[in-house]
Amino acid sequence: MNVEEFRKHGKALIDFIADYSANIESIDVLPKVEPGFLSPLIPDEISHDPEPFENIMKDVSEKIMPGLTHEHHPKYFAYYTSGVSFPGTLGDILASGLSVGVFNWINCPAGTELENIVMDWFAKALGLPKYFISDSPGSVGGGVLQNSASECIFISLLVARAHVIEQLKGDSDLHDSVFLPKLVAYTSEDAHYSMEKAAKMSLTRIRLIKTDSRGKMRVDVFKEAVLNDINNGLIPFFVMATLGTTGSAAYDNVYEIGKFSKTIPYMWFHIDGAYGANAFILPEMRRFGEGMEYADSMNVNACKMLLVNFESSAMWVKDVMIMKKALSANPVYLQHDNENKVSAIDYRNYGISLTRRMRSAKFWFVFRTYGLVGLQNHVRKLLILAKKFEKLVLDDDRFEVVNEVHLGLVCFRLKHSDDKTEKLLNIITNSRKMFMVPARLNDKFVIRYCVMYEYTEERHIIESWKVITEVATHILGQSGCTNGSLNGHP
Amino acid sequence: MNVEEFRKHGKALIDFIADYSANIESIDVLPKVEPGFLSPLIPDEISHDPEPFENIMKDVSEKIMPGLTHEHHPKYFAYYTSGVSFPGTLGDILASGLSVGVFNWINCPAGTELENIVMDWFAKALGLPKYFISDSPGSVGGGVLQNSASECIFISLLVARAHVIEQLKGDSDLHDSVFLPKLVAYTSEDAHYSMEKAAKMSLTRIRLIKTDSRGKMRVDVFKEAVLNDINNGLIPFFVMATLGTTGSAAYDNVYEIGKFSKTIPYMWFHIDGAYGANAFILPEMRRFGEGMEYADSMNVNACKMLLVNFESSAMWVKDVMIMKKALSANPVYLQHDNENKVSAIDYRNYGISLTRRMRSAKFWFVFRTYGLVGLQNHVRKLLILAKKFEKLVLDDDRFEVVNEVHLGLVCFRLKHSDDKTEKLLNIITNSRKMFMVPARLNDKFVIRYCVMYEYTEERHIIESWKVITEVATHILGQSGCTNGSLNGHP
Repeated sequence: MNVEEFRKHGKALIDFIADYSANIESIDVLPKVEPGFLSPLIPDEISHDPEPFENIMKDVSEKIMPGLTHEHHPKYFAYYTSGVSFPGTLGDILASGLSVGVFNWINCPAGTELENIVMDWFAKALGLPKYFISDSPGSVGGGVLQNSASECIFISLLVARAHVIEQLKGDSDLHDSVFLPKLVAYTSEDAHYSMEKAAKMSLTRIRLIKTDSRGKMRVDVFKEAVLNDINNGLIPFFVMATLGTTGSAAYDNVYEIGKFSKTIPYMWFHIDGAYGANAFILPEMRRFGEGMEYADSMNVNACKMLLVNFESSAMWVKDVMIMKKALSANPVYLQHDNENKVSAIDYRNYGISLTRRMRSAKFWFVFRTYGLVGLQNHVRKLLILAKKFEKLVLDDDRFEVVNEVHLGLVCFRLKHSDDKTEKLLNIITNSRKMFMVPARLNDKFVIRYCVMYEYTEERHIIESWKVITEVATHILGQSGCTNGSLNGHP
Repeated sequence: MNVEEFRKHGKALIDFIADYSANIESIDVLPKVEPGFLSPLIPDEISHDPEPFENIMKDVSEKIMPGLTHEHHPKYFAYYTSGVSFPGTLGDILASGLSVGVFNWINCPAGTELENIVMDWFAKALGLPKYFISDSPGSVGGGVLQNSASECIFISLLVARAHVIEQLKGDSDLHDSVFLPKLVAYTSEDAHYSMEKAAKMSLTRIRLIKTDSRGKMRVDVFKEAVLNDINNGLIPFFVMATLGTTGSAAYDNVYEIGKFSKTIPYMWFHIDGAYGANAFILPEMRRFGEGMEYADSMNVNACKMLLVNFESSAMWVKDVMIMKKALSANPVYLQHDNENKVSAIDYRNYGISLTRRMRSAKFWFVFRTYGLVGLQNHVRKLLILAKKFEKLVLDDDRFEVVNEVHLGLVCFRLKHSDDKTEKLLNIITNSRKMFMVPARLNDKFVIRYCVMYEYTEERHIIESWKVITEVATHILGQSGCTNGSLNGHP
């Protein structure tokens, strides 16, 4: 493909994406495919000869698009999304078109420095503690973009672990692994599953602390567990609180968790704000983050509310040197003259991967295109629409809302046995018109309904509620429909 | 930004990338900036109000572009690159514009299945062992796309570790971490630094085995180390061989390493083919991979030779269940009806991150646009150009080539003390016209010269050699130039 062909196909692809976005309401949110649908449609090896790009785009339209779940659709209420916006996509296009690797300063000075700048912008916009902001006086902290919240959490655990072991080890020549069996990490049972996965991958003992009826970590149980472990000769070294849990969008009490954690020797305090901390772009929401100033590290996914395309998982640490010590190794071929200058960051020492895309471009594009006020208006709208949906649920006696609705997530269920709500969800999912997912809260089966899409309007909320109530009437009337189909529903 | 504005700005951005690529030879490969150059040019927080996109693109041109190292420039001979091609960029554009998260089957059926298909395509094109190919009869293996080779290597280590611990543990209720201090991993001292970093992050004991004068792992030393560790009560559990080392593009003897590793209980054999295994797209190069059939897992970065934009790090495992067991956890909100079907892969259980981009699109676009024959021609050209450069070096008595040139990398030095070669490199780097990086081979300072760029021609090789020889003449003549400038050189 030569440069003129690229212009042609690239512009056609821009139109393809624009048309897709403009017409998204006309397609079902879920596809009508079964596992294994694609392989019979695709040859089983690379074509020997070059194929014209038109053939490929024809296959995209005919084979790929019918097999997509449309995450950026007004009736997608399922997971916290992977984010999309036009300026975010443009930022990704620039990053891919230049394809420069941001791993050490010399290989990409502008990409390196822009990442640091937008991480400072982001931290300031959310009102995060000053020590996370690299250009704040006296700060030795800073931010970095990782691939995902899972990665941020895993890295935080690894960094905290290296830090405690360094302290425990002193001048001893024991291998670092010898200290591991004594270490204990803590989070709540409602924390994102990636914390449990991080502990599993790193062979780290973890306690999943009970939550209260609102999905918040029970601080009394946490304290008791920590003191109990210390009495048993173990070493508590890491606690993660969540701002906006996956199951119910609950805000843990970071003030109480953080304050206590600072009384425990070696304890690292990490905050997973992947979803909920985005809302701090609204100053009135920052009351839910009181106590953030106790954090040693924190992560926020801008894709989850702030319109930056995935991957846009920002992570900050209070002391960058602790992170670099845990994650660095320094072969000759990666050395350069400027590597010891504070302003010449080598981001390879801030995460798992060596090479990294220029992820900062999409942040820069999105933040400037919307401006602070545009981002605030978007988040405010999501919160208002969720409240609107909550009111619709509360006004119907057959239903209950199971979480405190402060953000974009409403968890609801029928006031009946779990199987009724499960059936409700299955019928709606099988219709492919709406996508919601289940969760368990207070040991009950609930439906997650999350407002995320940039162009969601009140009418989408009302329409979706109409479908839910009609199916509920159908189920509760027990009119014989048990085959999981949504007969007669739009 | 509305959809019509996106069309306009998107198309302008396509032209921007096309123009950049078309004119790349007219700019210096290295930028004329010092650490800290960008922050004075950029406001220190998000603008309050929205900004027009034209302003942003003006800043891209005036502030970002002058601060880039141009990785896809005919005079970039430094690192194995992050890859770029027009169809690769188009694949990235599609993935970003759709922004669908490939984490479980239901959230992205087409993205999930396409990933599995292109991983099979890729494995077949390289002639990898059949058991890595998911649609091969009897296979229980398969592939997955990770962010980077570093991540592939780290994950392989974690999976192998979980597997050995599961076997050692049996029915015991000891914590997994208790087994860690006895485990030992092995690789060569010339393996990619990410292996050492992976061991550090995972608190795993590692032995860096000596290499011979050609940069290959010394199999005799490896065997001795393993047997010695067993005699000392330790448990060897992981060895990584490299196909195409970073320092010298050496191919380890995977046959000998693999064959021996299969005689050691619990030993997992991983092959890092990040760079060198790409060349197996040429059947005549596969002799360097003899013994791959002993591997339990393997990784190859298509960005390093095969024109797929970063991140394009493919990883295969012989037994997918072993990987899933090590990397899974299963909360209610991620469950779906089809999850136990073989064809409904949940890629979140194949790596660290939950959500992942639709990385398969760019593979599909590149493989089809070039066809097998186009990819083969590209790789063949890189190898021929490197041989051309090697000959130029060998024909000049003042220089020596320090590695065996089978791939695109030539490591060379002046036949003098290290400081002469270091000075040569510094002067050239400071000119900003050419970018090469240092390495240490056989305890000598050498310069890595790697041919990677799609449009590199013989004239670029000849021109770059002319610069190198002129600077060498200058240095060896000791005409008084010691200030690191390349006076009078183009």
